[in-house]
Amino acid sequence: MINVGIVGGTGYTGVELLRLLAQHPKVKIKAITSRSEAGMSVAELFTNLRGHIDLKFSDPADAKLAKCDVVFFATPNGIAMQQAESLLKADVKVIDLAADFRIKDVAEWEKWYGMQHACPNLVAEAVYGLPEINREKVKNARLIANPGCYPTAVQLGFLPLIEAGVVDIKHLIADVKSGVSGAGRKAEIHTLHAEASDNFKAYGVPGHRHLPEIRQGLSNVAKKPVGLTFVPHLVPMIRGIHATLYAKLTKQLDLQALYEKRYQDEAFVDVLPAGKHPETRSVRGSNLCRIAVHQPQNSDTVVILSVTDNLVKGAAGQAIQNMNIMFGLPETLGINQVPLLP
Amino acid sequence: MINVGIVGGTGYTGVELLRLLAQHPKVKIKAITSRSEAGMSVAELFTNLRGHIDLKFSDPADAKLAKCDVVFFATPNGIAMQQAESLLKADVKVIDLAADFRIKDVAEWEKWYGMQHACPNLVAEAVYGLPEINREKVKNARLIANPGCYPTAVQLGFLPLIEAGVVDIKHLIADVKSGVSGAGRKAEIHTLHAEASDNFKAYGVPGHRHLPEIRQGLSNVAKKPVGLTFVPHLVPMIRGIHATLYAKLTKQLDLQALYEKRYQDEAFVDVLPAGKHPETRSVRGSNLCRIAVHQPQNSDTVVILSVTDNLVKGAAGQAIQNMNIMFGLPETLGINQVPLLP
Amino acid sequence: MINVGIVGGTGYTGVELLRLLAQHPKVKIKAITSRSEAGMSVAELFTNLRGHIDLKFSDPADAKLAKCDVVFFATPNGIAMQQAESLLKADVKVIDLAADFRIKDVAEWEKWYGMQHACPNLVAEAVYGLPEINREKVKNARLIANPGCYPTAVQLGFLPLIEAGVVDIKHLIADVKSGVSGAGRKAEIHTLHAEASDNFKAYGVPGHRHLPEIRQGLSNVAKKPVGLTFVPHLVPMIRGIHATLYAKLTKQLDLQALYEKRYQDEAFVDVLPAGKHPETRSVRGSNLCRIAVHQPQNSDTVVILSVTDNLVKGAAGQAIQNMNIMFGLPETLGINQVPLLP
Amino acid sequence: MINVGIVGGTGYTGVELLRLLAQHPKVKIKAITSRSEAGMSVAELFTNLRGHIDLKFSDPADAKLAKCDVVFFATPNGIAMQQAESLLKADVKVIDLAADFRIKDVAEWEKWYGMQHACPNLVAEAVYGLPEINREKVKNARLIANPGCYPTAVQLGFLPLIEAGVVDIKHLIADVKSGVSGAGRKAEIHTLHAEASDNFKAYGVPGHRHLPEIRQGLSNVAKKPVGLTFVPHLVPMIRGIHATLYAKLTKQLDLQALYEKRYQDEAFVDVLPAGKHPETRSVRGSNLCRIAVHQPQNSDTVVILSVTDNLVKGAAGQAIQNMNIMFGLPETLGINQVPLLP
Repeated sequence: MINVGIVGGTGYTGVELLRLLAQHPKVKIKAITSRSEAGMSVAELFTNLRGHIDLKFSDPADAKLAKCDVVFFATPNGIAMQQAESLLKADVKVIDLAADFRIKDVAEWEKWYGMQHACPNLVAEAVYGLPEINREKVKNARLIANPGCYPTAVQLGFLPLIEAGVVDIKHLIADVKSGVSGAGRKAEIHTLHAEASDNFKAYGVPGHRHLPEIRQGLSNVAKKPVGLTFVPHLVPMIRGIHATLYAKLTKQLDLQALYEKRYQDEAFVDVLPAGKHPETRSVRGSNLCRIAVHQPQNSDTVVILSVTDNLVKGAAGQAIQNMNIMFGLPETLGINQVPLLP
Repeated sequence: MINVGIVGGTGYTGVELLRLLAQHPKVKIKAITSRSEAGMSVAELFTNLRGHIDLKFSDPADAKLAKCDVVFFATPNGIAMQQAESLLKADVKVIDLAADFRIKDVAEWEKWYGMQHACPNLVAEAVYGLPEINREKVKNARLIANPGCYPTAVQLGFLPLIEAGVVDIKHLIADVKSGVSGAGRKAEIHTLHAEASDNFKAYGVPGHRHLPEIRQGLSNVAKKPVGLTFVPHLVPMIRGIHATLYAKLTKQLDLQALYEKRYQDEAFVDVLPAGKHPETRSVRGSNLCRIAVHQPQNSDTVVILSVTDNLVKGAAGQAIQNMNIMFGLPETLGINQVPLLP
Repeated sequence: MINVGIVGGTGYTGVELLRLLAQHPKVKIKAITSRSEAGMSVAELFTNLRGHIDLKFSDPADAKLAKCDVVFFATPNGIAMQQAESLLKADVKVIDLAADFRIKDVAEWEKWYGMQHACPNLVAEAVYGLPEINREKVKNARLIANPGCYPTAVQLGFLPLIEAGVVDIKHLIADVKSGVSGAGRKAEIHTLHAEASDNFKAYGVPGHRHLPEIRQGLSNVAKKPVGLTFVPHLVPMIRGIHATLYAKLTKQLDLQALYEKRYQDEAFVDVLPAGKHPETRSVRGSNLCRIAVHQPQNSDTVVILSVTDNLVKGAAGQAIQNMNIMFGLPETLGINQVPLLP
Repeated sequence: MINVGIVGGTGYTGVELLRLLAQHPKVKIKAITSRSEAGMSVAELFTNLRGHIDLKFSDPADAKLAKCDVVFFATPNGIAMQQAESLLKADVKVIDLAADFRIKDVAEWEKWYGMQHACPNLVAEAVYGLPEINREKVKNARLIANPGCYPTAVQLGFLPLIEAGVVDIKHLIADVKSGVSGAGRKAEIHTLHAEASDNFKAYGVPGHRHLPEIRQGLSNVAKKPVGLTFVPHLVPMIRGIHATLYAKLTKQLDLQALYEKRYQDEAFVDVLPAGKHPETRSVRGSNLCRIAVHQPQNSDTVVILSVTDNLVKGAAGQAIQNMNIMFGLPETLGINQVPLLP
């Protein structure tokens, strides 16, 4: 059994880690910390866990995290970077679901995240945990930077096109839509039900923190800088990301075959038959990314549709996928649920 | 392994049976029938099942149902009553998720359902599959009448009060709210998103088919006829039933203790601590019924709050719970998922 | 033209007052105050008002409220009671949309609202602004206690029964459901879209502040204390209240005729034909209360269904209705919009 | 007073016409027809109209449409083209809210709409009723082709860029999102609440009927054929369209000034201040189109955000705007409501 600790368990990625880990056959949850809720029963805060999780939140100071095999950080940005080093020294693997280790260019990171990085030395070591690109590196990683929700859906969508070198990488467009759980479990007015439901809007068009992360990932694949316009939108739904991706083809080829071949061995990427449109509910509660490939009206613009559950493949599920890989377990263990539909 | 057949798999109870049975360790799905979709891949209709269910819908006439161990009817009312007899003769157990065998008084059934009963002789044999009341009978049953969604939430809520004989059973009130999946996967205007969302209404106040079913169940427990006012409402949500139950106390007692004791051995009934309010999402996708007991302002009116997922404990999950009992399996096998929250 | 001031314009009742007053032919809005947003353009905060309202929020200290003819308080509880007296002395009429003047028993008010009352002397003078009961008193009032959203829907629903003396007033039940805008425009976790949508729950069952207000109103009509069980619920919709009311008949009579007669001259109460069920969207954005009367299965329990828009008839619209009456204008002036459906 | 007839009043554009016309000071509704609901009270079908519309649906055959001044067709495609000619001969103006007269190339129309055109001779005469482009032609029109919902939001968004000749018109991208009322009031499974809520998907990516309409409109402005990729999506909300438009700049200029200047005299187009993001609810129930202009990260890709209410500016409101222009009334008369927020 893998002894697991969770730092910061009161947000949506925290409860989702708990939901999935509670059913994982090789995991024992040893500690879950929360500064604000220390002493409270986890199942009192998240009533879905009654009967499944019998732990209390512990104070971060008291928690025996150093005795775990792996610690997940389901914290706001800026926390993992302060604690990762000491855990690694104690031979504890670290998986950060926040953004602390995602951007290799520390100055760039500091610009977008508005704070000084606490351990720039670990940034280089950290492995960007998108298994469909970095599986081999994940196997031996001590420190995982778990990808953001938008970056997961967008990168998996663009990947085959860029690897194949068949699109104009200077003018990529990602028009992406997210459910409101992506904003986290935070008391804010703009994500109230009375504000966000029966409504639709774009936000962060001038610049969103996931832009440099996606740009870095795609540029790594392209082996040169890509140009990306990234427009996030807020959808009145709880879970789900839908990325609509546009690129100009520089070469004609069988796009459907390209995608099917690229992902044929990937358990969590499902390429739909030609002509289909994935819907976010078809992956609700699951670690899947479903993708469809379109070339409307035979123009030179390719349209990729890519959907995920932002809390699973976009966060907690992918983190466990990384854990499975790091510990030599079957990659799908404990995260192979059937999506909930309707 | 139990060989399972499903008749009528294109509705919401059908897809929910498939979601749960696909993950059940002791089940092999042999056939799923649909007159309208025969030949179509199940996973094409219900994309959440891609990669989990590799069957096509078969024509009811072709399906080898007689070779199954058990057949679930996830059909409209009036279908199971035409096919149950021949299956039983072939030693196949039958679980009907529709209403054909729920009401013992055949004349009463015919009045509410507007059709003649095709096999009144089987009505007496059929066991009403609410395990929390009828577990022993379910064990040896050949034919199960799986309870309706409203009746499950209402009966589990009222049960301890009526067994204890502490309320005026002539004036029970059940004010019940259901998500729209309760109306089924049928093309109708009043359940369109543009009609049902951002809206709330009561319906069927003069009389709803679940009224005689609940009345029968509660009267059986009370051993005399109960008087019940039952008002269903439509909630703009997908899944979930919330029953708010009112009764006049005829005797003061520790209601919290009464409920905790009654359900202490029930895996799927969760009595919340005093003062709490269950929410439907706390059981989303699970077979649980969560109940809270209130006596506001110390008046003589008791208020019970009871929530279920109408597609699980109110339909497919309870049907599998009954199957587990009938085949001597652990009652929670394959239906012990953690609810999906948020 | 009536010169109008609004204190506290950043909540939902504030923006709704502005929406309605912007189109009122006899109103000129002179000032709208907000401590937190002073100096900000109203239409920047509420983009629906762009092109309709050309005011900035002013600091409460600077605002020339004393020169208005009437001031609406769209503030949290406890603000109006501190400022009403000085406005009244300056001959300004006051309409409080909060609860400060609703409960005549000051000790009772202090118990439920958890604060000391700042001007108990004005409580007796304040007129409870439910025009369907108190129209004559409203005409000459200086100070209006505008009713709460739940109390409006519940009182209008029960009123004819209690006036006629035909129900057991010791055991009234109000099972009431509200959209989330009823919780106000406040940053809180439990009303986030990711928490409140696709979900249903009761809350405040042990005791809710609207209970004493409803009880007072109904007891006044009955001329003796009523017994009321009041259970509020949160519906995943933005606007709307649906009250389902239960009472035991002590006398048989033509209930439909009773309701039609009682409300035949009321512009804002619409009694539906027998057998109908009102839905909340049928009053969305309007000042209407629609009511249906049922006696299911001819039992002795009467069921009344009553719907309103909580922000209009349950708040801002009723406040303007009171203003119209106080200033001798046609009662429907400026608040006779057609509800928005779908 | 203008005598108005409506053909086909049982859909969402029909009820929206009625909502707006009921409050229009210069309109008298003479007849509203429905084959299926003839004889039924309009307010019984659409309960929001109780007390505002006192008409019954009449049989199309009986209706005295020829005595009206103007007839609106709120019908499915293919109806208006059969009746327009005889109405025009009777000196009745015709405004078709369906697609019969929108595409000037009749062969193209027949390809996309799958039927033969019944009166190709009138297609040339029909004026495409987008007042912001065609106001002068609308003034003298007898027959208006009222634009589609997507085409209105997309064309108003792209218009200034194309008029100014500053973008690559061969590679325009319109990523557009619509509320489900855009699918009409039709009994279909995919728009059920249980299917469409808490879900997001693209549809019609290979080809959607609004593509040729938008392409025609933009090509007319550009005076040469444009290349357009158009991807519609279904949003779990009732009303609203959000168009996110992408184009490659061929010339740098002050885009904000360009848009503000272009629309400074348009009552129903509101250009937001720089840096803002319009939301669909900010135009709910109103005839407004709100637009924001972005050039993220100073790249050469411009992003335009354009929102409308699909039932108002995208249908019924724009139709009345056209009527106002045709009859010499103030353009905003009767359609200047404040949007409903929240």
